Order: sequence, then C-alpha cells, then structure tokens
Amino acid sequence: MTATDVAAPSAAGAGVAPAVAPAQRCLAFRKYQGLGNDFILVDNRDSAELSLSPAEAVALCDRHTGIGGDGIIFLLPPNAATGAAGDACTASMRIINSDGSEPEMCGNGVRCLAVFAADLGMDTATLVLDTLAGVIVPTVAPGGGAVRVDMGVPVTDPPAVPTTLPETTAPVTVDGKAWTMTGVSMGNPHAVTFVSPEDFDAIDKDLERLGPQFENLSSVFPARVNTEFVTVDAPDAVRMVVWERGAGRTRACGTGACAVVVAAVLTGRTERTVTVGLPGGDLLIEWNEADGRVYMTGPAELAFTGSVMV
Amino acid sequence: MTATDVAAPSAAGAGVAPAVAPAQRCLAFRKYQGLGNDFILVDNRDSAELSLSPAEAVALCDRHTGIGGDGIIFLLPPNAATGAAGDACTASMRIINSDGSEPEMCGNGVRCLAVFAADLGMDTATLVLDTLAGVIVPTVAPGGGAVRVDMGVPVTDPPAVPTTLPETTAPVTVDGKAWTMTGVSMGNPHAVTFVSPEDFDAIDKDLERLGPQFENLSSVFPARVNTEFVTVDAPDAVRMVVWERGAGRTRACGTGACAVVVAAVLTGRTERTVTVGLPGGDLLIEWNEADGRVYMTGPAELAFTGSVMV
Repeated sequence: MTATDVAAPSAAGAGVAPAVAPAQRCLAFRKYQGLGNDFILVDNRDSAELSLSPAEAVALCDRHTGIGGDGIIFLLPPNAATGAAGDACTASMRIINSDGSEPEMCGNGVRCLAVFAADLGMDTATLVLDTLAGVIVPTVAPGGGAVRVDMGVPVTDPPAVPTTLPETTAPVTVDGKAWTMTGVSMGNPHAVTFVSPEDFDAIDKDLERLGPQFENLSSVFPARVNTEFVTVDAPDAVRMVVWERGAGRTRACGTGACAVVVAAVLTGRTERTVTVGLPGGDLLIEWNEADGRVYMTGPAELAFTGSVMV
Repeated sequence: MTATDVAAPSAAGAGVAPAVAPAQRCLAFRKYQGLGNDFILVDNRDSAELSLSPAEAVALCDRHTGIGGDGIIFLLPPNAATGAAGDACTASMRIINSDGSEPEMCGNGVRCLAVFAADLGMDTATLVLDTLAGVIVPTVAPGGGAVRVDMGVPVTDPPAVPTTLPETTAPVTVDGKAWTMTGVSMGNPHAVTFVSPEDFDAIDKDLERLGPQFENLSSVFPARVNTEFVTVDAPDAVRMVVWERGAGRTRACGTGACAVVVAAVLTGRTERTVTVGLPGGDLLIEWNEADGRVYMTGPAELAFTGSVMV
C-alpha cells in the first residue's frame, strides 16, 4: 500500500474518501470492413446515449495501442439521431471517426452496420435507420455479404454543390493544365474528371501531389471538394481513384462512386447501372431513372469479434 | 440450394462427394503492445505445430481486413523451437511477422509474450523460453506491466557484427558527410551514431531520405544494418530514432536500444544503466558489468481480447 492508495484519516477521525481510479468496464464489439474501410461496431441499443466518449473512440481506433479502425459505429435505439424517421424507424446509427469527429453518414459504414444488425438477429428486411444525414434504408442481400443502400437524390446545381463552376460540367485549370470537371453533391461535394486509361495510371501514381491541388481549389469549391479521377472501360464499367477531402487517398469512397456514375450519365459516357472499380474493390451503382435516387450495392464482412476494457 | 451445394448423383446411383469449402475454425487470441509495437498472441501450448500458416498470419495481420498487428506470436510447449533449453525450459516462442517471414527474436515481442503467459496463469517467475535465437529468460515485474529481458552479450568485433569498419567506432561518409559510427550486434547488426540535439531533430525530420542510405551501405555493412541516431541528455538518459532494416522508421526497437547503450558506454558517453527514450516510449537498458550481458526493461500491455474465424 502506498501513500496515494488511501488518504490519511483527518485529525477529527472522519474518514476522507480515497482517490480511486474510475472503474473500468468491459465493452463487447465486432469489427467489420467494406472495401477495406474498417469499423468497430458497438451494440448500443440499450441507450440513446453513446457508450463511448470521442476521446475513448480515438484511443480505441489507434491501430497499435487500441483495436484499430477508421471509426466506431453505434447501433442505437429508434430515433436516437434526429428523430426524423418517426414511427417507421427500427434503429439509429451514429459514427465517430478515428479523429474524434462525427460525420453525418458513411456509405461503407452503413453497409457494415446493416450486416452487424443482421448478425445480431435483427430483421434487416425492414431496417429503417435514423442518421444525422436523415433516413437511410439499407437492405441486406439474402445470405448476407452484400448490402444495397439508397444514397438519395444527387445535387448538380452548381451553387448547391457548392461550386462556382458556370455549369455542372466545365473546364478548370489545375497544375498548369485544363481539366473538365463535373460537380456533384451526394450530401458532400465531389469533382469528377474523366481521363484516358494512360492518363489514369499516371494520375494514380502522382495522386499525392495532384490531389491536394484539387482538394483546396477554394476559388471553385468553397467548401473544398472530394476529387475522383475516372476512366471508362465499358458502358457499364468504370475505374476510379479518389482523393478524399480531409483524408487523402483512400481505398474506397461510397459517395464518390455515386457521384462518378451521376457525372458519367450526365456526360453521356455510361448507362445508368455501372460497376465502379475502386482500389479496395467493386461497388454496383444504379442511378434510378424512375425515382431519381442513387442506389449503392457493395460488400460488408465481419473481420473478428472481441472485448476491450475501457 | 444451388447446383454447387450438392453434386448430382451419378447415373449408377453412387453418390459423388460434394465439393465443400474447407471447414473454418474459431481462433481465440489476445492483442498486446509494447511501446506501440503490437502483436496478436496465440495460446499454442497444445501442440508443437503452429496453429496458423504464414499465409493465414499475413491475412490476420492486415490492419483493415484482418485483426491488425506487426506479427503473430505463438506460446508453444517447452522445446518447440530449437530444443536448446533442455530440462529447464517451461515454454517456447515463435513469431511470424506481418510479411510472413519468421524472425529469430523480437525484444518488444518477448515482453508481450511474458505478460500473455502471466495473464494465462503461468508462473512467470520461472519462465525459460526456447526461441530461434536461443534461450530467453524474461521476468514479469510484480503487478505486471513491466518485463525485464536478458538480451545476451553484445558483439563488437567488427567482422562478427558484420561490418568492414576498421575498428568498432570509425568514421564513414554517407550523403556527402562524415558520420562516426559504432557497429554493434545484438544478434542483428546495428550502426549507432551520436549527434547534437539540433542535428537530432533535423535527422528525425529527414529520416525517410537518410535512413535507406545507411541501411544499404553494403560496402560497410554486408548484411545491411539497423541504424540508430542518438543524442545524450544526461549520463543516464539518451534519446534515439531508429531506421530498421527491412521495416524503415519504427516507434521502438529493443535490440537497437541495447546497441545504443553499448555504444554509449564504449565511447565514454554514459553510465551502464540508461533510460533510452524512443518515439514509442522509454526502455531501461542495463549493460551489466559483472556478466557482460544487456538487460532490457520495458512495458507490455493487453490491448483487447478476441476471436476470429480462419
């Protein structure tokens, strides 16, 4: 026993409460990944309050000293994000990124959450999620593994993207060269540029130098922008690399793949249903003509199950 | 049921064995880290054969699609590595790195293994390990957390390091500049260079450019070399950065910290017991005058517990 374990009784004999470390608790989790974008999933259905603070989430996302992950996703009770889903809501989703920030939504993350809910025994035929980006309705394919997500209606009116481009598709000079960009918002702003297969490979190798010049083109994209470089292989197949705003090169970006197909259809390059090849794998994107919404279908898989003291 | 689930019976009525996927098995593990060097620990005491193939280890070490780790460490039955420990042996250790290779030993890893053995209820007061680098005797401090490891007798005879340096400490020109290097082997070769605090900060910033020039100085270090840049703060305190052979910049290198103290003592810069500050944290290194052996004391901690299907 050391001096700090128990405080000495006061002269009056009344005990002073000892300074004790906060009690640790055991947190059960499952780790999932979709196209290499990986998340720690926590069953938080017993409370509308998150069971982890942002600081705890940052520590758990550390890949050397914690569990490791791009973020932590919480499965919450119905209407625990915005309440917008009302009576139809069956659950809620919130995300804390590895840097402690809270994004509205994440296309790869919502697929992981849907498979997590299915693995927990929830009826995912009727999953209606309340999220900070509104109501999201993911559908787990029979047998699991693939999840289809309604990503909403794209925004192509330049001021709403937001961009100062005079039209949805227009030329811009970057790095001393003219590029034709299409500005699309999927809740977040994207600049899509189509290039030849040869230029695609060269841009991929040079992305760490080129990417920031597009990302920070604040005269054209005042909220900065996610940038996709794309080459068209067939009317139903494209390949893309992405430079994400605030994250740099990533293996996959769900909203980016949606923006790419919207831009490809608008410029007459592809059909409305396209397989988008990303460095982390493929996403099937459909821009539905009838309802104007974009649907993303892609994989999500359990990596492992665990528990941690926090 | 699909056509591939069950093969159609042959015309003769004899069933054809269906093509089935290999049975998956559930592997329990614990994740530990020492100074940010992190390992998946597997209780393999029921067999002298490793329970994972190198390819499975590589997949499990992937930080996005697997568990994530710098390597997998197996706790094996006595004399399951070389048999050199004989009757005194209480367990064995083998490591598979994240690239599938098998190193002889790892200073941070053996500390993690010792705490893992203690957590499993083994008597770590008498832990005698058979490893590919020979017998290792780690001691877990009462209360856990810190582990003291006998790292053996350093080798400073230049041909045995191996190096072509004319003496243990000699000047070498790298990047157009003269550096005074001390060559030390702790089972693996090290080049230790002492610099001023100002130069230390500049080298740290430039390590990705400088490090490979030292690592691949094959005319001087024919087996390539691990390189440590060190600044002395006090007779019992130094700080170092390391460029590891085959791994580049790392947060901690146990054998490197030992080599640094040997070089510091040989060149009259420090006492024999020194706190070595690494980017991942501190190690206490003692080069014992009586037995000539180097003892390393440092932390190892449980990160989380889990199970995975392989």
